[in-house]
Amino acid sequence: MKTKNVLKLFLTAGLLFGVSTLFAKEKVYKLKLATTWGPTLSPLIDSAKNMAQMAKTMSNGRLIIKVDASNKHKSPLGILDMVKGGQYDMGHSASYYWKGKDINTLPFTSMPFGLTAPEQYAWFYYGGGLELMQKVYEKHGVYSFPGGSTGVQMGGWFRKEIKNLDDLSGIKMRIPGFAGEIMAKLGVQVTNIAPGELYTALDRNNIDALEWVGPSMDVKMGFHKIAPFYYTGWHEPASEMQFLVNQKVFRKLPKDLREILRVSMRLAAYDMYAQNYDMNAIAWDKMKKEFPNIQVKTFPKPIMDAMKAANKTLRQEMSSKSKLLKEVLDHQDAYMKKVREWSKMSDYLYLQDNI
Amino acid sequence: MKTKNVLKLFLTAGLLFGVSTLFAKEKVYKLKLATTWGPTLSPLIDSAKNMAQMAKTMSNGRLIIKVDASNKHKSPLGILDMVKGGQYDMGHSASYYWKGKDINTLPFTSMPFGLTAPEQYAWFYYGGGLELMQKVYEKHGVYSFPGGSTGVQMGGWFRKEIKNLDDLSGIKMRIPGFAGEIMAKLGVQVTNIAPGELYTALDRNNIDALEWVGPSMDVKMGFHKIAPFYYTGWHEPASEMQFLVNQKVFRKLPKDLREILRVSMRLAAYDMYAQNYDMNAIAWDKMKKEFPNIQVKTFPKPIMDAMKAANKTLRQEMSSKSKLLKEVLDHQDAYMKKVREWSKMSDYLYLQDNI
Repeated sequence: MKTKNVLKLFLTAGLLFGVSTLFAKEKVYKLKLATTWGPTLSPLIDSAKNMAQMAKTMSNGRLIIKVDASNKHKSPLGILDMVKGGQYDMGHSASYYWKGKDINTLPFTSMPFGLTAPEQYAWFYYGGGLELMQKVYEKHGVYSFPGGSTGVQMGGWFRKEIKNLDDLSGIKMRIPGFAGEIMAKLGVQVTNIAPGELYTALDRNNIDALEWVGPSMDVKMGFHKIAPFYYTGWHEPASEMQFLVNQKVFRKLPKDLREILRVSMRLAAYDMYAQNYDMNAIAWDKMKKEFPNIQVKTFPKPIMDAMKAANKTLRQEMSSKSKLLKEVLDHQDAYMKKVREWSKMSDYLYLQDNI
Repeated sequence: MKTKNVLKLFLTAGLLFGVSTLFAKEKVYKLKLATTWGPTLSPLIDSAKNMAQMAKTMSNGRLIIKVDASNKHKSPLGILDMVKGGQYDMGHSASYYWKGKDINTLPFTSMPFGLTAPEQYAWFYYGGGLELMQKVYEKHGVYSFPGGSTGVQMGGWFRKEIKNLDDLSGIKMRIPGFAGEIMAKLGVQVTNIAPGELYTALDRNNIDALEWVGPSMDVKMGFHKIAPFYYTGWHEPASEMQFLVNQKVFRKLPKDLREILRVSMRLAAYDMYAQNYDMNAIAWDKMKKEFPNIQVKTFPKPIMDAMKAANKTLRQEMSSKSKLLKEVLDHQDAYMKKVREWSKMSDYLYLQDNI
């Protein structure tokens, strides 16, 4: 072969290698995400949508995440199963929805009398919480990340005022999760009902009380027309949603897209907390002006004490059944002891003097 | 020209065009960022460093931000000037440091008796605060973004207990910013001293009291050895740092890198809030165990009332001098009225029952 031809060959080969490398970097990854939420359920659905939008723009279109609302896949409470099984690459939901399948996933949404949102974010990201969450989700082949906090949820809507423990006894209430178990200990007939049927259930006397989220999402549901006693919160002080990602899918992404995905999820979560704080402020103000008949109440101390006692007993029962659950709950408790002291000296004392 | 040669020409031209387009996308943008902080001043310096690391990884090395600590540029309080003048492309500092040059920049760090961190993030991102901040910084040719919150700052260290207004009169205190003006109204001799000289100033009796940040940053400074009365906070309920970006530099970035920069700054800010919450919890716990002689106090009501009255008067004086400042302060006040009601019904009532 002549020198000139050899040179040509090298140049061509080099050029083709360079081009193919560059085009490989331009490969588009398309992921599908299933949510528990309806297509317009702000701010919950916004967290997933904002995350997808950030990932698309930051990756210059190389990471496209399609967000399916619950009307698309018809399985609002089956998100973990679908991400685990590979029908979906990602999910956005709440960890405590599948406590029946894996009790260890319970403590990552919110625990009664547990951490507040700033405390819980500190725990997740700097106190070891995220590592414990990955440990729990490892056996499902899924990574789990915080997906947005509602902050303190309200204690719910009641048809009549709850003055003592007798008033609770026998009433039918929609309250899911661990809080429902506590209410059951206090004599409440506990049930769970899908969000879309809550108003009808109340209207038809199928239930006497219900909890949903807080002013940002409750007031437009119209519960106050039937159950005007609105109780402040105790059972979900910082309900954190969760992003789920199938581990195999995550590992196949190039390094830059993995970081784009991680950062988009983490920012969307914090942003949902700020968005919902704003929505709650607006909705609370509107509620006070437009619906002066709503009676905002706090459960009397004897009821709170009974709830706390039931909480303690139930946690001990649960902990005795799973070593890993005990590890997570003990870790949260130890962290709360320290961080609550700081919350008291900072936000609590400050608010006390400025309300 | 032969058909074969024309074809060759087209192929070569096409290939070169494709390759050059792809290489253009690979262009590396190198930015320089100046901070107010020393190289190890956690968590403040971490916010800038984390931001730069995220931007680098997400852009696959196309956006490189070099973070210079204050020992490098020797101008810790001149960050706005350097970003404005183009010596640096970006900055990380606190907006109230240059209130002397532009009074309108004051309200974006934290105001005495003002918004808490969750309230302020809701205001910045969903309540219109960010738009007002851009309006103020527009004339400097600089974009400003939240850069991380310290949460509630402590009221400071005092050599002796402050039981009444007389105890404040005539004492020399290091307390910068608007809070210093309030203290001056109460008869305090107010001064500002660089962080590195605080301990010496106290030790040599140049000052009788000082405020710095909170347990996460205060305890290791050793102030308690000389001034063991540690007061809870009132003057900076949510001190937010700021990222600054020269507008011309920002506009030159391609769309994907602009979004990578925006998202990295926003996440680094939230993360600093969580990091400092965790650091405060740990430091407070350690402080209580290792230094039982520290006496934690809250200013008595007559002093708080006098501070609030001085605050009101000073705000009115300031507002009368700048229409834009008045617009920002009024906007914050109106927002606080709504959002504080929600904070009271949620976090405050919840903490009240769980401390």
